[in-house]
Parts: sequence; C-alpha cells; structure tokens
Amino acid sequence: MTKAEMCEKVLAAKKSAGVTWQQLSEVTGMGAVYVASGCYGESSMPPEAAEKLGEVLSLSDDLVEELQTYPTKGWSMGAKVVPTDPLIYRFYEIMSVYGASMKDVIQEEFGDGIMSAIDFKLDVAREKDPKGDRVVVTMNGKFLPYKKW
Amino acid sequence: MTKAEMCEKVLAAKKSAGVTWQQLSEVTGMGAVYVASGCYGESSMPPEAAEKLGEVLSLSDDLVEELQTYPTKGWSMGAKVVPTDPLIYRFYEIMSVYGASMKDVIQEEFGDGIMSAIDFKLDVAREKDPKGDRVVVTMNGKFLPYKKW
Amino acid sequence: MTKAEMCEKVLAAKKSAGVTWQQLSEVTGMGAVYVASGCYGESSMPPEAAEKLGEVLSLSDDLVEELQTYPTKGWSMGAKVVPTDPLIYRFYEIMSVYGASMKDVIQEEFGDGIMSAIDFKLDVAREKDPKGDRVVVTMNGKFLPYKKW
Amino acid sequence: MTKAEMCEKVLAAKKSAGVTWQQLSEVTGMGAVYVASGCYGESSMPPEAAEKLGEVLSLSDDLVEELQTYPTKGWSMGAKVVPTDPLIYRFYEIMSVYGASMKDVIQEEFGDGIMSAIDFKLDVAREKDPKGDRVVVTMNGKFLPYKKW
Amino acid sequence: MTKAEMCEKVLAAKKSAGVTWQQLSEVTGMGAVYVASGCYGESSMPPEAAEKLGEVLSLSDDLVEELQTYPTKGWSMGAKVVPTDPLIYRFYEIMSVYGASMKDVIQEEFGDGIMSAIDFKLDVAREKDPKGDRVVVTMNGKFLPYKKW
Amino acid sequence: MTKAEMCEKVLAAKKSAGVTWQQLSEVTGMGAVYVASGCYGESSMPPEAAEKLGEVLSLSDDLVEELQTYPTKGWSMGAKVVPTDPLIYRFYEIMSVYGASMKDVIQEEFGDGIMSAIDFKLDVAREKDPKGDRVVVTMNGKFLPYKKW
Amino acid sequence: MTKAEMCEKVLAAKKSAGVTWQQLSEVTGMGAVYVASGCYGESSMPPEAAEKLGEVLSLSDDLVEELQTYPTKGWSMGAKVVPTDPLIYRFYEIMSVYGASMKDVIQEEFGDGIMSAIDFKLDVAREKDPKGDRVVVTMNGKFLPYKKW
Amino acid sequence: MTKAEMCEKVLAAKKSAGVTWQQLSEVTGMGAVYVASGCYGESSMPPEAAEKLGEVLSLSDDLVEELQTYPTKGWSMGAKVVPTDPLIYRFYEIMSVYGASMKDVIQEEFGDGIMSAIDFKLDVAREKDPKGDRVVVTMNGKFLPYKKW
Amino acid sequence: MTKAEMCEKVLAAKKSAGVTWQQLSEVTGMGAVYVASGCYGESSMPPEAAEKLGEVLSLSDDLVEELQTYPTKGWSMGAKVVPTDPLIYRFYEIMSVYGASMKDVIQEEFGDGIMSAIDFKLDVAREKDPKGDRVVVTMNGKFLPYKKW
Amino acid sequence: MTKAEMCEKVLAAKKSAGVTWQQLSEVTGMGAVYVASGCYGESSMPPEAAEKLGEVLSLSDDLVEELQTYPTKGWSMGAKVVPTDPLIYRFYEIMSVYGASMKDVIQEEFGDGIMSAIDFKLDVAREKDPKGDRVVVTMNGKFLPYKKW
Repeated sequence: MTKAEMCEKVLAAKKSAGVTWQQLSEVTGMGAVYVASGCYGESSMPPEAAEKLGEVLSLSDDLVEELQTYPTKGWSMGAKVVPTDPLIYRFYEIMSVYGASMKDVIQEEFGDGIMSAIDFKLDVAREKDPKGDRVVVTMNGKFLPYKKW
Repeated sequence: MTKAEMCEKVLAAKKSAGVTWQQLSEVTGMGAVYVASGCYGESSMPPEAAEKLGEVLSLSDDLVEELQTYPTKGWSMGAKVVPTDPLIYRFYEIMSVYGASMKDVIQEEFGDGIMSAIDFKLDVAREKDPKGDRVVVTMNGKFLPYKKW
Repeated sequence: MTKAEMCEKVLAAKKSAGVTWQQLSEVTGMGAVYVASGCYGESSMPPEAAEKLGEVLSLSDDLVEELQTYPTKGWSMGAKVVPTDPLIYRFYEIMSVYGASMKDVIQEEFGDGIMSAIDFKLDVAREKDPKGDRVVVTMNGKFLPYKKW
Repeated sequence: MTKAEMCEKVLAAKKSAGVTWQQLSEVTGMGAVYVASGCYGESSMPPEAAEKLGEVLSLSDDLVEELQTYPTKGWSMGAKVVPTDPLIYRFYEIMSVYGASMKDVIQEEFGDGIMSAIDFKLDVAREKDPKGDRVVVTMNGKFLPYKKW
Repeated sequence: MTKAEMCEKVLAAKKSAGVTWQQLSEVTGMGAVYVASGCYGESSMPPEAAEKLGEVLSLSDDLVEELQTYPTKGWSMGAKVVPTDPLIYRFYEIMSVYGASMKDVIQEEFGDGIMSAIDFKLDVAREKDPKGDRVVVTMNGKFLPYKKW
Repeated sequence: MTKAEMCEKVLAAKKSAGVTWQQLSEVTGMGAVYVASGCYGESSMPPEAAEKLGEVLSLSDDLVEELQTYPTKGWSMGAKVVPTDPLIYRFYEIMSVYGASMKDVIQEEFGDGIMSAIDFKLDVAREKDPKGDRVVVTMNGKFLPYKKW
Repeated sequence: MTKAEMCEKVLAAKKSAGVTWQQLSEVTGMGAVYVASGCYGESSMPPEAAEKLGEVLSLSDDLVEELQTYPTKGWSMGAKVVPTDPLIYRFYEIMSVYGASMKDVIQEEFGDGIMSAIDFKLDVAREKDPKGDRVVVTMNGKFLPYKKW
Repeated sequence: MTKAEMCEKVLAAKKSAGVTWQQLSEVTGMGAVYVASGCYGESSMPPEAAEKLGEVLSLSDDLVEELQTYPTKGWSMGAKVVPTDPLIYRFYEIMSVYGASMKDVIQEEFGDGIMSAIDFKLDVAREKDPKGDRVVVTMNGKFLPYKKW
Repeated sequence: MTKAEMCEKVLAAKKSAGVTWQQLSEVTGMGAVYVASGCYGESSMPPEAAEKLGEVLSLSDDLVEELQTYPTKGWSMGAKVVPTDPLIYRFYEIMSVYGASMKDVIQEEFGDGIMSAIDFKLDVAREKDPKGDRVVVTMNGKFLPYKKW
Repeated sequence: MTKAEMCEKVLAAKKSAGVTWQQLSEVTGMGAVYVASGCYGESSMPPEAAEKLGEVLSLSDDLVEELQTYPTKGWSMGAKVVPTDPLIYRFYEIMSVYGASMKDVIQEEFGDGIMSAIDFKLDVAREKDPKGDRVVVTMNGKFLPYKKW
C-alpha cells in the first residue's frame, strides 16, 4: 500500500464518520495539523494514536499499520514547485516578501543558525475580531546553531 | 533610486549605527520584521516611521522618501523559485509537508477561504527551553471567505 | 470522489441536458463563470445552488455533495506554469505586458495594497460592434491595503 | 537607448513633476494604464501623445522619440514565469482558478475563438463600498473566431 | 470522451482506412494540416467536414460530435516547453534564431502589431529541387495593429 | 567585441541612417530577414554584404569584420524558453497547436525526416486584403531524410 | 498501438529470445544502436529489417508494422530536460564542458554550419587497454553549411 | 582574474595572431578541442602547453598562470539547460533520440557501468564525401564498471 | 517487468519477512545501502546476492532475475530536480552550501579531477553521543584525474 | 561589502600568500572545508579564526569583519538547480541514485527523522590505494527525530 492509497482511504473514512480534525485531535491527544498530516501521508503516527484513529474511523489493520510507517515527504504537492492553491500559496508569498527580514531578525536574536523544521510544531487558532475573525498560525521550532568545526 | 540601491545603503547605515532590528522596532513602534522588510525594500514605511529611521540611521532625504514608496515585491529572492538559504528553505519545506493539512484544518474551522497575506502581521519571539531555546513565529492574518457571486 | 472525477461527470451531464452556462446561471441565480468554476472543481457551490444543479442536470447525491466541498485550487491547469490554450494565454500575456502599469495605476489611486482575488467576482459580456463584437471581462475585487504592524 | 533606460528616466521625470498617471491620462487623452505601459516601455506611444508627455515631463528629444518605437514586450517581468509581486500574482491566480471556466463561458457565447490581447483596452476604476472600496478592472478585446481553412 | 481518446480512435480509423491527410483534405475541402489538427484534437471541425470524415473513416456518432467541440489547445505537447521531436524542434529553433529579425521586418512594414495566429492558415508544399526536394511552409495570418486607447 | 555590442552599434547606425531592412535587403541583394539576423548577431554575413552594409551605415572596420564572424545562436532570446513578445510568441503557439499535424503531413508526403533549419530561407510579404492586410511568412527548407545505418 | 507499448513488447521478446543488439545488428545488417533505437521507438525501421526482426524475435504482425511507422522522437526521456542516468548524463556533461570548443573547431574547419543529426550515424566500439578497456563512440554526420539568402 | 575574463582576452589574442585551433594544437602537441577548452576556461592547461600558448599568442604572465588553474566547469553554457546554438543542440538531440539505445548497447558489451567523461578524449575530423563532406566526432573514454560493495 | 514493479514487490516481500536492510546486508555480504539500492531498482545485484535475497525474501524467479538487470538510474526521484523529502534534501543543501569549498579542498589535494560516483561506496553508521546520537555517512570514491589529450 | 566581493578579495589574497586550505586549517584550528566555506561566503567565521586569517592573508579590517557576518547561503551556485561542475554534480548524482536507499537505512536504524545539515561537519581525506588513491568524504550530523505534537 502506498501513502497515496492510504490517504485516499483514510480521508474517505473520516468523511463517512463525519468527524473533524479538531475532534480527531482531541481523541488522539495530538495537534490537529499533525493528525491531518499523518492521514495525508506526510507524517508517521505513533502506534497508540494510529490505533485510536483506527477505532474512531473503523480502519482496517493494514491502514493502521501504514499510518505508522515513515513517509517520503512532499509527495502531496506533486511536481509543483510553486503551490497553486491560494491558501497554501499565501504562505509561499509571505516567505518571498518577508523571508530575508525574518532571517535577519531571527539571526540577530539567536546567532547564526536556523529554526528546525523537524523538532517543530505548528498550531492553528481563531482570533475573534469584529472586523472579521483572524487566523493565527504559530510555528515553534528549536533553534539550531551552525556547528563550526 | 531603485529599492535595491536603497536597501544596500540603509543596511550599511544600520551597520554603522550599530543598532538591531529590535531596537529599530522600539524606536519606530513597529514590528521588527516589518521594519526590516521596509529596509529590504519589500514593504513601504509610513512617513513618521521612515523619518524616525532617517534620524536614527542618519539617512539622506531621498532615502527617507524611497522607504515610503510602494515596492514591487519578491525581488529580493532573485529568480529562485525554491529558496536556497537554509533558514528560509525550512519554511518552504514546512509548507511542502504540512500545507495540505493546514489548509484542511483552517477551512474546517473557518469555511472556504484563505488567510490574508496582506491584512497580516508576523512576529518572532524566543521561548526559553533548557534543551535549547526555541524560535516562535506567529503569523496573524484576517480570514477572507471566498465570495460566491 | 475526486474533484477531477466530479468534473468529468458533471460536464457529461451538462452536455446530455443540452444547457449552457448562461442558462445554469439563471437557474441558480449565480454568475455563469462561478457556476462553471464550481463544476470544474475550482470553487465550492452553496448548498441550494448545488441542489438546483442536481435537479437540472439529474446528478446523483454524491455529486451534489462533492460540488459543495472545498477544492484545492489550480489543479485544472496541470503542471503547466504558462498556459498553452490561446484564449487563456492571452490573459497571461496581458499581465506580462500591462501588469506593472496596472499595479502603478491601482496603487496610485488606492494606496499600497492589492485587489483581492478572494472577495472577488468576474463577469463576461458581449459588446456589439459592427467591426466585430467584443468580449468584455469585468473583474471586481475588494481593495486590501497592506497592514503595517 | 534601450527601453529600460528610457523607462528609468521617464519615471524619474514623472516623480519630479509630481503628476499621477490619471493626470497624464487627461493630458494625453489616453487611458491611464496605456500611458503607464508606454512609459514602462511595453507599448509604443502615438507621436502627439509622446510629445505631450515630453512637454509635461520636460523630456529630452530622444526620450520623446524612444517612447514611439515599437517595444519587445514582456521584458519588465524579467525571467519570472510566475510573477512574485502580490498585486500582479492575483491576476495570475485568477486565471489559474477561473481560466477554464471563462474559456467555456466565452466560447459558448461567441463560438470557437479568443479575446484579442492586441485589439484590446483595459481600464481601472474605483467602486465605492462601505465595507471597503473595490477595484474594478475592465478588459475589452475584439472576439477573434478561429479561421478554418 | 476526452480529445485524447478521440484522437487515438480517429487516428486508428485513418490507419485502417489507409488514407492520407492529403486525401482527407480533398474529401473535406479543407487544408491537410487543418484536418489533421482537428483529428489530433487541437482544432474544432465544421459540422459538414466532421460528417464527411465520419463517413470516410467510418466513425461512430459521438466521434463525429467530439470532432466539432472546441478544444483546450496545446495538450498534445504534454508538459514539454521545448519540443523534443526534431521536426517540430526546428521550427522552435527558427524562432530562436530569426525571431527578433522577423519581428523587426514585419513591424517596419506593417507598424506596431502582430500576425494573428487565430485568423490564420498554414500550408505545406513540396518544391522540386535536383539537390533534394524542399519543404515549403506558408503561414498566412491577418495583421493586427495594437489598439491604443 | 561581442555580438551583443556589435548588435547595439549596428542598430544605432541603422537608425541614424534612417534606412529600413527592406532597403538594406536591396542594397545587399540578400533577404530582409537574413540581413536583420546578421545585424542582430544571429547569422554571419558574407564579406561583400558586410562591406556593403559598412558603407551604407558608415560602420567601423571592426564592425564590418564582426558581422562576418560565426555566431553562437539563440542568445538574443536570453534565458527565456517561452518567448514573451506577443509577435514572436504567436509562432511558438502555432507550433504548440499545429506542430504534430504539420509533422504528420510533412512526413506522409516526404517520408521519415525533417525540414532543415540550416539549408533554409524565410521571407515575409504583405498580402493586400480589404478586411485587413495579411502577413505571409514563407519558410523554405531542404527535406532531410533520416539516414538509416 | 503506441510506440511505448511496442517498445515494451519488443524488449520482452528480445529478452525471451536471449539475443544481443550486436546479434540483431548482424541479422539485420544495420548498426546495433540503430536497431536498438528502432525497438525503443525512436527510429523507424526499413521494411526488410523490421520483418527480419519479426522472424528472429517472433513478433506479431502489428508489431512488425509499428516498427516501421515514423516516431515522435524524444519521448523515452520523459519530461527530464537533464538526463538522470549516469551513462547518458556523461554525454550531456561532455557538451556542457566541451560544446563551445567543439563548435569552434568544427566551424574553423568547415565554415559556418552544423553537423547533421539526421544524415547521421553512430557506432560504439571497444578499445582494448591494459589499464581498462575504453568505450569509443563515433558520430558521423554530414556537414550542413548555413544557407545565406 | 576570472576564467571569463581570461577567455575574452585569450580569444582576442588568438584573433590578432591569426592562428587556428588546429595550428595551436600542433604547437602545443595537444588536441584542438582540448586546447580550445583550455582557452574557453573549461579545462586546465599543463604548464608547458600554457607557456607555449603564451609565447605564440603573446599572453601576459597572469594569463599563462590562469590557463593552468582548475576551472569550475559548465559556466560557459550560462543558465541554459537546453543549449540554443544549433550546432551544440544537435548533440543534445542525439542523446535525446539515441541515448537509451547507446546505453543498452554499451552495457550489453561492457557490463553495468559507464563511459568516463574524465578519463576521456574527443577528436573532430573531416571525412571527404562527394555528396558533402562529413564531420566525424570520436569520443573515447575509459569504461568504469559500477563498484558493488 | 519494470524496475518500478520489481521495487514494489521486493519491498512488500521485505516487509512480510520482517527483516532490516542491516540483516540483508549481513546475509548477502554487501553494504546495507547497496542492497537497498538494488531493491529500489537503482543498482544491479550480483547473481549470488540476488539469489540469496530470493531465498530470504521468498522471491519469484523473475524477481531474482530482474534484480540483476542493469537499471536506468535516477527514476525513483520522479521529475523532481530538487528533492522534497527533508532527509534527502539536506544532502542537496550540503552541496549547495559546501560544494564549492569541497571542490577546492579536494582539487588542492589531488589535482584537477573528480571523485568517482561509479567506483564508489557509501556507508552509514551511528556515532553515540550523549547530546544526541549522530549519523555518520562515509563516501569513498576513486580519484579520477582529468585526462589531457 | 557583499559576500561576493569579500570572496573575490579573500581568494586573491590566498593566492598571493601561496597557502593551501590545509595550511589555513592548521593555522585556524578549523576544518579545511569549513575555512574554505567561510572564505567563499557560505559560512560565518568565529572572531579568532577570522582574525587569524586576517593576519596570515594580510586582509583589511572590513574583510575580517565581513568574514564574521552571517551569510545568505547557496548564492555561490547562482541560479543553477542542477550543478554543472562535474565534481559537484557527482554528489548530486549520488543522491539521485542512492538517496532513497540511504533514507531507508538511516531511518531503519534511527527512527523517523533526519541527519542535521546544521549541527554537522564534513571532512575530506586521502586513502592511499595502488589502483589509484581514493577520496574519502565523511559527513557527520546529529540525528534529529521528528517531533510529534
């Protein structure tokens, strides 16, 4: 079974079950984006979480097992180097516009190094606003200083 | 004067003055990343902030004026569609890996639409951690529902 | 069901029914381009409109449901970054030739910001002309000023 | 003199003169976007309009002459096949999302053919709206039916 | 039915019938290249010509109908921006080498504008030559002057 | 001296002399497009033609010599794989739409092989037409059959 | 039948028959590389050679026929503009490193023109060498001088 | 001094001296293509050869020294992944058409491995032919079997 | 059978057998990465190793045979020129950052030449470290000096 | 001063001083590749090492300072996504061929995660071998397990 086949089946099961990523987040005790990325085949799920998902979504055993295997990442973007979906593109645009500035501000504060995308977590929240609610995306990654050898 | 020429001169002035983006943020009352993006020529500065920068960094009048003109954005990435700098690339990778998941979680919560990259702000903070401090990037954009006509 | 599968089936049903986008526009009370984009899987249809389409085109329930789900957009262009179809290419060419000028004129009038492609509508009309009728495309999007923070 | 050199000098003269494209449109009796595209080196100006611009902006004779030469178009986008500036990108996105639909609606109305990008004009206007003013872009091009031979 | 499926079936029927494009050109009274482009799914056939083809090639009714629908063009080149087939590549090379020169010569003669690729026809002929026969390709398109507005 | 420098100087001399490619064609006895391609640095001029040009355009000796050197071709398109200029793009589009058809028609007539782009000539002519004059481009290249070994 | 399907079947038949390209070269009296390119669907086989192959490899009649049709070339490289296979890449690298030099040496000897890739043949041979045998690739193409018109 | 600067100066010196690569090949005792590649900055020259060139072309000492430094290769192709010059392109085309076949024939003869592009030499020769002389390019590289570990 | 089909079947057999690449390395006496690359269809296995794998993984005869055929390499990266998987991307990044430096250090030590990627082996090992274990990748390739001819 | 300007000056100073990276490695107590990457502008040098280099290479103060600033990385590869230099390309090829295998072997040993390219070091060594000395490249990076949140 490929991750693409797993993804298709798990998303169909989620639709049948009528549950949201937020609810699956509560059931598994993991972040909603992380649970989604596991089901999209971009992350590996811990065994208990995979089994919990298996129960809630009535998944077959091999699906539960596949959720735990380590993926080759980035496949869900196809061959597109610039994303076409407007929601995802906006984040690409943000980096295009503010990337150099963020780099400077981060490195002025932390020194020469980067924010890890591996020892990393990401949350999405709603901020109420009378002029229109706002999406708040929080990225939290360990600072990794460049080793000089 | 092009934005590229302005950028080169303002960064040199900042280096001479020995100030950080954080300090320029306090002086201007604007976010550090925003101030930096103005100096990198990717944003336009409000008049008072531009003048404040002019004082602190001893900029000539035409530099202060150029800081206020509206830029053509994205030029500082050159022709690179995939960023090569490791710090900036990590954000591209995050979208490649978690993009589809974020989209799903955001739209399940807010409906069909996107997070604005225009009515938008971005902050960088340090989170103390004994295993290594962490970079916290917070993106905050208005939710824009798709108009159906 | 993927949006691609939905698209294929809905277009076939429209062909069998022998109706035009203009007629479907009148039936649903929505713009012809919007209705088409919903059937092409690039927009989500409001429930009533989807049901109305279901009736007129004799669509199965799952097609009516799929018409309402939120799409990942831009898929119908495949991996082509420059469109090959001559009609669509002309709009790409217009931006290549007049893009910088439009940007300048819009920002001189409205300030630093953009025209929204989300809070946006698009109409196509015919202008009679003895030298050959003309296509009039009207794009109408909310102006979004850049937030400075 | 290259069009790029001409563009740089004319834009500087316009800045010194403190006039807007709207004002130059009135002076020359041509559309604001067209006048801008002439100054950006993407269109050729008619002699009288070029001379009028020469007067208002105090341009040298060779600039007035260069404004009238026929350009090689699309140079102002550099080597970027996907535009990076957010305002211009939104129009690219609109085609990515609504392109197939527009094509269908236009051809259902007019037959097999395209909207000309040569026998073509484009206007930008402001639509007052209490929820935020709107940008209205009107494109008007002759319909060209495919010759069958 | 997609144009790709139509193309495959019509080409197979042509092979069975053992006729050339030249013969189909005579039967339909249309140019050989145009008839071929209709069968390749890159042009729409007029009803009488489609029916004539249907007779000669014993095509089913839905093939005859599909031949008349308006195509999304350029699909037959796949995702290749530079053609790989040597015969087709040579025309791309000709533009790469002589393109700027042709543009200059055409515009010096006709003014600022282009040759239409829509109100356009193309013929292929053989020129006898003792040193090796020659291929003569004649392209004939209406000159479209740039509208200035 | 590079071909780019030569090109810039020769075009300036042609402008000063106020002659057209058509007139230079008559003076040199060569095709207008060929003369232009020599001056654009995409072809090498025969000695007599180069000297004739030198006289008419008052070129320095090293320019006359450079016109005769063998060029590295295709440089005048820069790094653009898809041309942006609308006049040149139309020929690219023609190949995208009619390329497979032309190939078929040519090979059905001549056998497996190609039209040479080296033993090749190209002319541009005007065809009077009350509905708008037409551009006629004639390409004439030797047929080269594939050697089977 | 597509060339891709033909290729798959002929290669399977060759494997079953346990013959080498060298042996097929002897049987058909054609070069080993040419025979292989015919079976890979990149060249058309002469009738007698195709029939000879049909006998030796026990091919069906439609395979023998398909071997003789004229291919659209370059398909076997997929969409890869830079080859990934190390053996094939080395030839691409050789052109990248020695291309400009070869061009100069050839044109100094032959004049302005190219080596034909159509009236062309290619052989592979082994050169014994105690330090490790060597691959000798000989390319032999007609020199085609640029026609000046 | 960069290799690009060296290249420009050495080629100018060669032009002044009025010598061919063939003559420089005899003077240095090295292959004509190799000498050219050294002067184009794509290969390093052995000290004696560099000094010999220095004498014949009256090069300054730092040019003679630069000829011996190790280059970063492939720069002379710029950013072009597909070569535009027709002579060089033909070799790219040959690999596109015959690459898979050559690979097969070589590996059937030599086993799993490649032809080295490093322990490699390349010669160009003229083959007299009444129907038009032929270019013969001979590539000779050591076979390198894949190490299995 | 294609290498892709072989890969899918062998990986499934390995999963069923519950063995690691390390264990298969011991069984076959070959490096773990090499064994894996054989099963991924990027290397050819020696007969004994292939048979050993056939036993341990209960592979059919044609799988054992296919493991020994010579692959066309690089297919497992699809059309991606920049790898998207974070683990693989890091090695691409390392070359982007340290490539020019490595080249310089290697050539200063060994002379003008390269490290072979054919007469080459690669090992992965774990280095215990209290601050977090480390991955040690050792690449070992024969130095190949450029042949000067 | 840009990193590119710094690089050019430091490399010239190194050449004048006649020292190798190995010697600079000993002087500074840092790895040869790291010192080179600092001078190439791809890494930041620690203050003492930068000063040490300043002494040995007689660098001006602003060069010593620039060596310590944090670079935007990857610039030295220009816009090339596939490296053209043969030595550097071979490492790209290794990833293309063995990347998926390495990933599998590393993750089977360490779990789901990656090798850090930041907390990382790289050494180059010579391995004596009678059949030709070998280049040994050792990469050593911390294993970073994916955080699950």
